[in-house]
Amino acid sequence: MSTPRPSGLIATSGIELLTFGTPNGHKISILLEELKAAYGKPYVCQSINIAENIQKEPWFTALSPNGRIPAIVDHDRGDFSVFEGAAILAYLVRHYDPEHRFSFEDPDDASRVEQWVAWQHGGLGPMQGQANHFYRLAKERIPYPTQRYVGESERLYGILDTQLTNRDFIVGPGRGKYSIADIACFSWMNWAYFAGVDLSRFKNVEAWTKRIEERPAVKKGVNVPGAPRVTNEKYAVMVKGEGEFAEFAEGEKKLKDLAEKAKEQYGYKYASP
Amino acid sequence: MSTPRPSGLIATSGIELLTFGTPNGHKISILLEELKAAYGKPYVCQSINIAENIQKEPWFTALSPNGRIPAIVDHDRGDFSVFEGAAILAYLVRHYDPEHRFSFEDPDDASRVEQWVAWQHGGLGPMQGQANHFYRLAKERIPYPTQRYVGESERLYGILDTQLTNRDFIVGPGRGKYSIADIACFSWMNWAYFAGVDLSRFKNVEAWTKRIEERPAVKKGVNVPGAPRVTNEKYAVMVKGEGEFAEFAEGEKKLKDLAEKAKEQYGYKYASP
Repeated sequence: MSTPRPSGLIATSGIELLTFGTPNGHKISILLEELKAAYGKPYVCQSINIAENIQKEPWFTALSPNGRIPAIVDHDRGDFSVFEGAAILAYLVRHYDPEHRFSFEDPDDASRVEQWVAWQHGGLGPMQGQANHFYRLAKERIPYPTQRYVGESERLYGILDTQLTNRDFIVGPGRGKYSIADIACFSWMNWAYFAGVDLSRFKNVEAWTKRIEERPAVKKGVNVPGAPRVTNEKYAVMVKGEGEFAEFAEGEKKLKDLAEKAKEQYGYKYASP
Repeated sequence: MSTPRPSGLIATSGIELLTFGTPNGHKISILLEELKAAYGKPYVCQSINIAENIQKEPWFTALSPNGRIPAIVDHDRGDFSVFEGAAILAYLVRHYDPEHRFSFEDPDDASRVEQWVAWQHGGLGPMQGQANHFYRLAKERIPYPTQRYVGESERLYGILDTQLTNRDFIVGPGRGKYSIADIACFSWMNWAYFAGVDLSRFKNVEAWTKRIEERPAVKKGVNVPGAPRVTNEKYAVMVKGEGEFAEFAEGEKKLKDLAEKAKEQYGYKYASP
């Protein structure tokens, strides 16, 4: 079933989410599913196929001037629009998480959430995004940037692995409390293998992703607007190479091999403080 | 005069800033100079020479777990530490800008500031940082990533150029009000030429940088912890090639030429929505 190409807003109340099935998209769809489950906050979603450049059209850039997904429009607050994932997460918990189920009232913990959301938004996201490009998506395989970005992504996974020592969640007293900091980082780390990062090397992060993906709202959120392409769970099936995935598994061996050779060539050593 | 290698905190009251003379460092030193001028808020600074990897030492990563500058410690609020530029800006205005001279009380404008700070933190900063690397700093000149990151930086300059149409500052009613959104973006755009971006192509952005750099606190902030390496103002002198800068100007011609050829080779066209 094909839906018509989006050409404008479709809702008149609640939150309208303009998104696609990517890590940055999932950050927001997961939080919106959590808010729906916790408070009954409704939202409507439109799939913005980025391969078709819908996000570059004037009606879209009027709402999201950078021409990227995700963006939201809050029809309950004068059709106010918000772009940039970190700003959308902050907006949604400020207005629609009055019981602080996914955020913190304490100003110091609220700042710690901001710090880790910013770490995802300015480090993990952009760098893993470049790893996706050079490890997998670019037309050419170029060794230097491949090892640069896969290596930097690994360094960042190591940083969060250290933070999660003896903790269940990134921020909060004791073993921590699930919050938008976890949602932001999970959404990228749920695509580790797609970027050439072996998640099993980061035991604390791996256990934490499993803890998060069990949540019903997360299971729903990662399927918005449709089934995701290659999250870790799907990758584990595809890389076995059975049936339709034979070609994928064969190609994957080559990509891994090229990345390993690139790391050796440049002596890039994964290291975290 | 050489100062001893930093090995721990040195202040006991006010804000302690751990930084270096980079765009990300300047974001915070500019705001701290503004807060000092507006409210008399004191701060102490330590220069963290990133070439010496001081930012990877345990005393530093205990405060800033990602091992990057800048970080602050607030000795007036229980030695609370904050890392990641976007989170530091938010923290400082929340606690130390009661009159909203660099921020907004109105929640919608406050969100717009968050959106543009996030745009800088997740887009402009990381991408211009990669342009710095491939255009200028990496040992090898590799055409594909060079044009990718210089081109993406140019796209981002175009986005802000559009936003600044008929405006003096990024956010706020009418022609806008100077805020941390301007400080965040200025700090990177003040190094445009270093990254291979010709600022004169972006007339609104160029006029806005001049508006901002006239501020006394900005003039001070960009000299913390020492004179900056190659901001736009300094570049304009160096690229003339007089005296000691002859070699720099010669090298710069080659870098520009390589970047232009790389753009042609890959057909990367600067475009903004």
